[in-house]
Amino acid sequence: MNDIAKTLNNIRIKSPLVHNITNYVVMNSTANALLAIGASPVMAHATEEIEDIVTISSSLVINMGTLSEKWVDSMLLAVKKAKEINTPFVFDPVGVGASKYRTATALKIIATATPNVIRGNASEIMVLAQQASSTKGVDSTMLAEDAVSGAIEFSKKLNTTVVVSGAVDHIITGDKISTISNGSTLMPKVTGMGCSATSIIGACIAIESDVHLACTTAMAIMGIAGDMAAELSKGPGSFQVNFLDSLYLVTGDIIKDKIKLNV
Amino acid sequence: MNDIAKTLNNIRIKSPLVHNITNYVVMNSTANALLAIGASPVMAHATEEIEDIVTISSSLVINMGTLSEKWVDSMLLAVKKAKEINTPFVFDPVGVGASKYRTATALKIIATATPNVIRGNASEIMVLAQQASSTKGVDSTMLAEDAVSGAIEFSKKLNTTVVVSGAVDHIITGDKISTISNGSTLMPKVTGMGCSATSIIGACIAIESDVHLACTTAMAIMGIAGDMAAELSKGPGSFQVNFLDSLYLVTGDIIKDKIKLNV
Amino acid sequence: MNDIAKTLNNIRIKSPLVHNITNYVVMNSTANALLAIGASPVMAHATEEIEDIVTISSSLVINMGTLSEKWVDSMLLAVKKAKEINTPFVFDPVGVGASKYRTATALKIIATATPNVIRGNASEIMVLAQQASSTKGVDSTMLAEDAVSGAIEFSKKLNTTVVVSGAVDHIITGDKISTISNGSTLMPKVTGMGCSATSIIGACIAIESDVHLACTTAMAIMGIAGDMAAELSKGPGSFQVNFLDSLYLVTGDIIKDKIKLNV
Repeated sequence: MNDIAKTLNNIRIKSPLVHNITNYVVMNSTANALLAIGASPVMAHATEEIEDIVTISSSLVINMGTLSEKWVDSMLLAVKKAKEINTPFVFDPVGVGASKYRTATALKIIATATPNVIRGNASEIMVLAQQASSTKGVDSTMLAEDAVSGAIEFSKKLNTTVVVSGAVDHIITGDKISTISNGSTLMPKVTGMGCSATSIIGACIAIESDVHLACTTAMAIMGIAGDMAAELSKGPGSFQVNFLDSLYLVTGDIIKDKIKLNV
Repeated sequence: MNDIAKTLNNIRIKSPLVHNITNYVVMNSTANALLAIGASPVMAHATEEIEDIVTISSSLVINMGTLSEKWVDSMLLAVKKAKEINTPFVFDPVGVGASKYRTATALKIIATATPNVIRGNASEIMVLAQQASSTKGVDSTMLAEDAVSGAIEFSKKLNTTVVVSGAVDHIITGDKISTISNGSTLMPKVTGMGCSATSIIGACIAIESDVHLACTTAMAIMGIAGDMAAELSKGPGSFQVNFLDSLYLVTGDIIKDKIKLNV
Repeated sequence: MNDIAKTLNNIRIKSPLVHNITNYVVMNSTANALLAIGASPVMAHATEEIEDIVTISSSLVINMGTLSEKWVDSMLLAVKKAKEINTPFVFDPVGVGASKYRTATALKIIATATPNVIRGNASEIMVLAQQASSTKGVDSTMLAEDAVSGAIEFSKKLNTTVVVSGAVDHIITGDKISTISNGSTLMPKVTGMGCSATSIIGACIAIESDVHLACTTAMAIMGIAGDMAAELSKGPGSFQVNFLDSLYLVTGDIIKDKIKLNV
């Protein structure tokens, strides 16, 4: 808990520049989530500048929510550059399995450079882990638990941290598993909450070199801000507002008080 | 009224996957509107995956708010595929008439596959119905009533349902006309409310095969959520928040109580 | 003060069409800011229609937040057309200096047609004024004051108005300098507030031919709406909501009462 509070505090002190190549739907909301938590977002995707932006950033977020050819080119350039200069990166395989193109792109990104973190819902992680072959898209109703055994194998195979989001979030680094049980049922009623989780992981890995701890911190912040927001909200509209306020207002002490962490 | 309540209820039970090829401005707000009402949005536009995504979706929404060449290619592929597999689709000709390119694109889409529904403001519908030749853009101040006679002819010619939005919404299927007089004057002060209406039509035609009823349901939900939100709001910022909450909270009983429907 | 109130009033009466070629992150929020203040936004970027849209619009906003090749082509076409038909335009060089591509693009736009206004933060303006050679991106922590002397030279060289945003906003037209000291510390915690300032400048130059006055009006409206919103807000989420409400609710009398203007 002290480590989590310290990572949050360091984000606010250092305000790391987090480079996002993400989807059109959530660019605004993830930029706002990063600002609210104290990080500094930059969104840039042109192949002409992608390496310059990776170079000045402290971490990289790759989110394939709305793919197209040029964007895939940029993602591949970005992850190559990130690996080359040891900039940590997190990959969000949004909707993998929903189309052949999406699956092929996800596999191409992972093959080009192993992400430091992969975050998805249970269905997405299972597709990637080749234990499932189809997905309904981005808001799978599958339980996170269903994907855990596949995720452990996948984490070992890639030697990376895998985060499976759901009512219970699983942070998996080989055989090391932490769970966070915070969060609200209103979260799946707001678009891009998973994408915000991925971007906040981006902020945490920019600051904390222990990737498992960084991911646990990110999911704790998301879940507890979700708890705080849900108490004040009547529906998904007010929830979004209160969620950004809560990301801004959450403190180490609140985290210690509210966290439902299992290690 | 019972039919309308039943359609709303079925959206929440079945949570249909609604595929949106829409504009950059409203992707976030229409995804959130669909989630709030109980549907499941997917946004995808790459030609490489468009047919896969149409295939797994229950309906298709084509919105030409921010056009460009590749997106038009995708829209044409999508509507062809939708027709081929009998997936219902709704077309929103945003800003048709504001440029030659926009008008040509709208006509090309309609010529490629007849939409099950066309929704626009009075100006847009009149341009399409060739009774007018210019438009100020997306927030026309023309009254919906002005476009009704043209819309009736247009509906008959295409054998489709035409929805003309405004202070009074007209749902037109040949000579059958229903009107909904709910809604708030704050709605034109928020970007993308028309686009949200189109996406909610997408959710309703995914569930209800009587297209006229589906469109009437969608416009009733929009208008009544607008009424509910306006009562709680000081301006367009709080209106947006309360509108999403209202889409989430509206029930069949509230609809029965508040609806201003004329058949 | 009376001139500022009059310009605000004229925006609401005339509802000028403001054409934005802007970045993906802020399209929704800047469209909503323009609607809230009483203007009429249009977002369009296809080279196929760009000249048609410039032609029907009262002003043009060029914002290079998320660049790519096709968009740069459109921006260049748009500014050429705007100059040709004397449509005023404002340029927001977002993140100039963060990559070679971004700097080259900004210089190309300015070389193609001199903007009527250039608005940026201190770092961006200094890069453009060639007094600095790097920038952290869009949320520079440099003080506006640091860029003032460079901005004066730059304004004279280009014969244009330069607006340097920060805790104190500087509106600079040659040796004429006005400052606005309104605004809240929550504003840098919300993405796109600078972009909203640029779009509101777009609305003001569409109405008021005295560009210095138009820019002073825009920054006063932004800052005072920020003051009003901050009083009601707990964090950046509620601030965004209250800010849009305040843009809608601000009046000439409120401006006269609250403005912190130095000429």
